[in-house]
Parts: sequence; C-alpha cells; structure tokens
Amino acid sequence: MPLMKSWVASANEADHPFPLNNLPYGVFSTEGGDPRCGVAIGDVILDVTAAEAGGLIELADEPLFDLPFWNPLMEEGPAVWAALRNRLTALLAEGAEEQAQVEPLLIAQIDAEMHMPFAVSEYTDFYAGRHHAQNVGTMFRGPENALPPNWLHIPIGYNGRASSVVVSGTDIRRPWGQLKSPDHDMPAFLPSRRFDIELEMGAIVGTPSDGPISVQEADDNIFGYVLLNDWSARDIQAWEYQPLGPFQAKATATSISPWIVTKAALEPFRCDTPVREFELLDHIKDCGPMLYDIDLEVTMEPDGKDATVIARTNYNEMYYSAAQQLAHHSTSGCPMNTGDLLGSGTISGPTKPERGSLLELSWGGKEPLTLDTGENRTFIEDGDTLTLTGAAKGKGYTIGFGDCVGTLLPALENPYAR
Amino acid sequence: MPLMKSWVASANEADHPFPLNNLPYGVFSTEGGDPRCGVAIGDVILDVTAAEAGGLIELADEPLFDLPFWNPLMEEGPAVWAALRNRLTALLAEGAEEQAQVEPLLIAQIDAEMHMPFAVSEYTDFYAGRHHAQNVGTMFRGPENALPPNWLHIPIGYNGRASSVVVSGTDIRRPWGQLKSPDHDMPAFLPSRRFDIELEMGAIVGTPSDGPISVQEADDNIFGYVLLNDWSARDIQAWEYQPLGPFQAKATATSISPWIVTKAALEPFRCDTPVREFELLDHIKDCGPMLYDIDLEVTMEPDGKDATVIARTNYNEMYYSAAQQLAHHSTSGCPMNTGDLLGSGTISGPTKPERGSLLELSWGGKEPLTLDTGENRTFIEDGDTLTLTGAAKGKGYTIGFGDCVGTLLPALENPYAR
Repeated sequence: MPLMKSWVASANEADHPFPLNNLPYGVFSTEGGDPRCGVAIGDVILDVTAAEAGGLIELADEPLFDLPFWNPLMEEGPAVWAALRNRLTALLAEGAEEQAQVEPLLIAQIDAEMHMPFAVSEYTDFYAGRHHAQNVGTMFRGPENALPPNWLHIPIGYNGRASSVVVSGTDIRRPWGQLKSPDHDMPAFLPSRRFDIELEMGAIVGTPSDGPISVQEADDNIFGYVLLNDWSARDIQAWEYQPLGPFQAKATATSISPWIVTKAALEPFRCDTPVREFELLDHIKDCGPMLYDIDLEVTMEPDGKDATVIARTNYNEMYYSAAQQLAHHSTSGCPMNTGDLLGSGTISGPTKPERGSLLELSWGGKEPLTLDTGENRTFIEDGDTLTLTGAAKGKGYTIGFGDCVGTLLPALENPYAR
Repeated sequence: MPLMKSWVASANEADHPFPLNNLPYGVFSTEGGDPRCGVAIGDVILDVTAAEAGGLIELADEPLFDLPFWNPLMEEGPAVWAALRNRLTALLAEGAEEQAQVEPLLIAQIDAEMHMPFAVSEYTDFYAGRHHAQNVGTMFRGPENALPPNWLHIPIGYNGRASSVVVSGTDIRRPWGQLKSPDHDMPAFLPSRRFDIELEMGAIVGTPSDGPISVQEADDNIFGYVLLNDWSARDIQAWEYQPLGPFQAKATATSISPWIVTKAALEPFRCDTPVREFELLDHIKDCGPMLYDIDLEVTMEPDGKDATVIARTNYNEMYYSAAQQLAHHSTSGCPMNTGDLLGSGTISGPTKPERGSLLELSWGGKEPLTLDTGENRTFIEDGDTLTLTGAAKGKGYTIGFGDCVGTLLPALENPYAR
C-alpha cells in the first residue's frame, strides 16, 4: 500500500509518523479545556468529539466520543471500528468534500496536552521475548538453564497493576522499597538503586470474552497497539519475586504512548513468529502472521544534555504474538474485558545493541554503557529522560505511535511525610 | 459489647449471624427486580436504596445507593461510613420511632438473590499465612527451606484477576489448562485434575491513596471484610508459576461472601499478629491490633450427599494483617483505589484439621481425606460444593458473613466449541 494523500499537507511529508494511513487514536486537551477524543493526522489532531457532536461522524444511536477515553468505541466491535476508520479516511483524504467543515476541528499537536487514551481495565505483562529471557536467565541461572522448562510452551505472564499505567510525559518518581543487598544479612527500606526500563509493545483488548478463546478469536478481539515502558526496580524485584513473581518492583509506573495505533493501520506489517523448537499445543498454535514489523528505539537523555540511542530492535523479535498471549490468558475461563492491556514482555534482539532493558545492556550492572555525552550508566540516574519510539515502515510512508517518554525524578526524602 | 436489640425479632436470636451489632452490606434482587443495595438484619434485608429514595437515609447531596454496588459509599470515607452505621442502627434498634416506615422496606433473605456487593477495581492475593507457607514450602522444598528468605520480612503478594471475582453461589467450571505430569516429558492441554480451594479473608479498600501509606493509614482506609475462596488449579500452577508467579491457575474464579462486614462491626474482635522472629522494618511494623478473631470453617458436600467439615481455623492465625499488606502494596507508589480487594492468603492453623486448602489437607494428594459419607478426597471432584463460613463470637452475639459457597461443574468437553 502506498502513501494515502491527505489535504492536511504535513501528513504527506516523508517519514511523518501520522500519515492518512495511520489515524491513531488519543485523548487530548488544550489550555483550559476538558480532555476529548482525537485522531492524529500530520501535525494536527482532529477533534473527534466535536466531529461527532457536529454530525460529521455518526456511528451509533448514542454518542461514542463524549467521554475522555476510547473504550466506548472499543466496545462496539470490528464493524464499527472499520466504519469509523472509513469515515475518518474519507473526511481527511485529498479532495474530501467536507474539508471546509473539518478544518475548524483541527488542533495543532504542539498546543495539545495528551492524556491516557483509554481506561485500563486490567494490566497483564508477559515475558515472551526469547532474547530477553535468554539474557536474563543466563545472568541469573547460567546459559544452560536460562529458559525455564515452560518457556517454549506457554507465554509466561503475570498480572500487573492497572492503576499504575500512565500516559507518556508523566514524570516517574524513583520508588522506595524493601530490598536486600547481597552483602547484607538483613533487608532495608531504601530508594531503589537499580531502576530500569522495559521496552515493550502493549496490545489493547477491544472485544470482551468470557471463556477460552482461540488465537484467531484473540487476534480479532484486539483493538490496537501502543508503545509500553514497564519501569522496573530490579533490586526490589530481586528480593520480592520468589516465589510468586514481581509485585512492588513493577507497581511504580508503566508508561504508554499517547496514541493507539489500530490493527487496521498495522495490517500491512504483519509477520510470523519465529521457527519453534517445540510445536505449540493447539490452544496457542500460530494460525497466521500476528506479529508486526515495527522498528523500536530507546534513547536516554541525561538532564540538560543530548540524548543517546541505547537500543534498537524490532517487535518481530518476539516469540509469542499478542494474540497468542490473549488466547493463553483466557484458557482458564478468565473473563477478558474491553480496555485490558497486555504488555508483550521486553523486546530484545540477538545482539547487544538490540537489548530492551538496562539490566541486559549493562549485563546486570557489570558492563556500564557509555553515552554519547561521555557519561557512563548502569541503571537510570535521577533526571534521566527515557524515550521509546516505534515506526512501521511502509513503501513511502511510516506508521508512528508518538514518543513514549518519562523522566525519572529523585526519590522523596521521606516517602511518608505528608 | 453485648447484643444490641432490634425490633426485627430474628436478629435477636442466639448465634444469629446478622444481629444489630453486624449490619453487613450487600446487593440483592427479588424476582423480576433490579439489583439494589441492602443491609442484612436477622432473616431480612433492609432495602437501603429504597430507604434513601424515601428520605429515611440522607447522607450526601447526591444519592449513594442508586447503583447496584457499594463503591459510592466506600468512596465517601470514614465519617460517612460512621454516619450510615449510626443511622441504620437507629432505624433498626428496639423502640425505633421509624419502625412503621422501615417495615415495608424489609425483604425476606430467602426471597432474595445476592449479587456482587461491590465493583472490584483490582484484586491482589497474598501468601501471608505462616502455617500455610510452612506446609506448602515443606511439601515442595523440604522443612529446612520451607519459607523463602523474604517471607518473614514482607507479606508476599501477587496481582490477581479482578474480572474473575464472583459472588457466593456462582457455580465454578473446572478449567482446562496447560500442565505437565511429572511422568511425561511434554505438557498437555487438559482439564485440571488438582482443583482446590483456598480459605481466605478479603479486605476491601475504601479510601484511595496515591503514594506510600503507613500501616495506620492503611487500616483507616479499609472499608470492610469478606470471606474469600481463591479457587486454584494446582497442576496448572505447578507448570506455570516459575518464574513469575501463578497466572491461569488462579484466574478461573475467586468467590466472595455476599455480605461485606464493616470494620466497625469487627472492632471488638481486633487482635494482635503473632510474635515475630525478626522485627519488621518501620514501613510495615505493627502499630496496634489489626487482625481479627474470626472463626472460620470449610465444608465439602458431594453432590446429593451430606456435608463434612474439612477444616476449622481462625483469621488470627495470619502472620500479617490486611493493613500491613495494604501498606506494603503502596510502598512503590502504587495507587490504591476504592474497590481494590486484598486476599489475605490461605489461612491455616498449626494442626492438620486447621489447614485451609486441600493441597495441605491431603498433603499434595498423598493422604486422602475421608468424608463423613465414607468417600475419599484428595482434590475437588465434579459436583462437590465447598462452603466457607466465618463467625466472630462476641459476648451474647455473633457476627457472620453469610456463606461463601461454590459448586464445581465438570470441565467442558471442548472448551472452544461455541
């Protein structure tokens, strides 16, 4: 598919993340205004709430965009998702009759503040990147026992904390937590000293389910994708995670990109999961290309200094697709709801510059990175800004997500002072 | 505190679970009617939604009981919680002037169907019973290594799945899942063969928090308690839980009692946590009696046969209180919301008949129980009904929760057939 031309000139620029082929969904506000639903096109946002209120978009008897999140549309299902996309494409395409009516509803992105694009029902994070699991397992258990016995048979996942999911741009406060240094006999309550990122994609459930669903049904039920950074306190995690998994180490914050890129926009970029060592059992077997070819990049920017690219990889490095993860999530009969967010797990490629966490990049803190500024890093230091970007590169156009960015603030001196 | 007398005669009966001292909150419906808020008193339910609509209860400018869950009241905080309890006590006490107005708002419990009493925001389950952890650890790792190194320093918890929480009386469907028998090299997708209960109490967050809170603040923020049965597929759990904790094994269902017993009703039953081997760090140190003396009992009833009591224990056997768990949950800055549900972890006492799971009662399936019917059990069989009851026994009165009951239905022949 070539670039689709829009009458919004900036959307036609080479490598612009928001061409007419994309049309990602977000929630924005302008100074003094309430948050509302919008779609990104070039350098502007079409105010979808206003477009619906003004009769330019009519999809249902009740308004779908009068709340500041996209869940009501997500609940409507694939036919309405397609109808909206068709209508937005028609309104914004070169030569659209409605251009004069739509133009007053465009807001410059530079003037907009972005909010959470959807209400997160529940949040699940997976551990489904082969290279990440191999790296982490090698560090902790040696290369022979790197992958747990179940790893090649099910996408390992754990429930995270929906209340801690925040939109890109939200500052992250370094957490306190109980941890135990290897050179101490007893734990202590301290600010985390090994605070990390996890480069991930997040899949958003649109259509709910109640009972086991197949991989194909799971793929059908997914509404779209965001970039996701699962901030992780490695020292808290090391002390707490046995035997029941990570808990407070992962509960400070998880950042997502401001724009939900729909499955329709990503359709040309579908690709297969890798060749498998063991055939998967039927309930999670591949049934079509359900990963996506999306280039991913992480930069680290010390306070007031230039940013350095610290990792480049691709979503196609995953061992399990989001559809397989969602299908697995439903096997026990677990009801899945509109707005459930599934983190892919850290995405790392096979070589060192492709690693999606500082834990891997600095090999557990033993091999510091050198930034372009000349500074060294093992984990994140106060004031560092971490930015995730993603781009699916088509023939003549690019699909972007907007930056997923967060700055680490120093720990509070006394977290219990009010 | 002695029995407080009500003009509802059944509430004054010896050992009745719902005397005036209790006043637990639930959501009920009668044939053909919509679910509404109610409070149990003796054998009847006071329709609180109708009482508010009729002007007998006035607590806020906006109605608090026009939705079929108690979250709006929970959000109001302790002063309004106390005001409602005072008003209900006045309306239902012996000699109340309003008796004639209240009487038409009473519904026989026998005619009511109970629904989820609150909307669960997120669900967290802990592993904070010393005897349970000791038993399970001994089975899996031997008595020397039974407790993980962190166990005596933090209440180990993991996030569960709020969408799977159901009210007492909901049938439970035996799940399928991926599991691996010890005598097979490869996993298989099969119905669970080791399906179990976990006898727990659930604490419900009333007042939200955003940032670390102290144990005292956590206790203040808790609204009330329910009985909780965290149904668990042990064979699925055994295969999946390393390294990131239980996932699908715990996602089929968690049942709670229909009635929320408020902290105020349980006030006379506060008791201390046990003497500690290691002093806890300040952030989760005890600061008052925050466990409760509540007798707990589990019965198993094969289809069409008599029930057998299979376990008797007490909530005061826990090593950590719900307040300590909630405080720990907030250490990383994790926002806690109205309607968050915290499972205590399985409650077992020191002796065999006090064990709160079949895993412990049958010692991993090796020592079958004999029921009063003469049948043996290791884990739950199809058609078995499991019932949890709880009773705080005061001088001359009892505080009950209503039964927390569920019947296990056979696994579907093909879980993917529609």
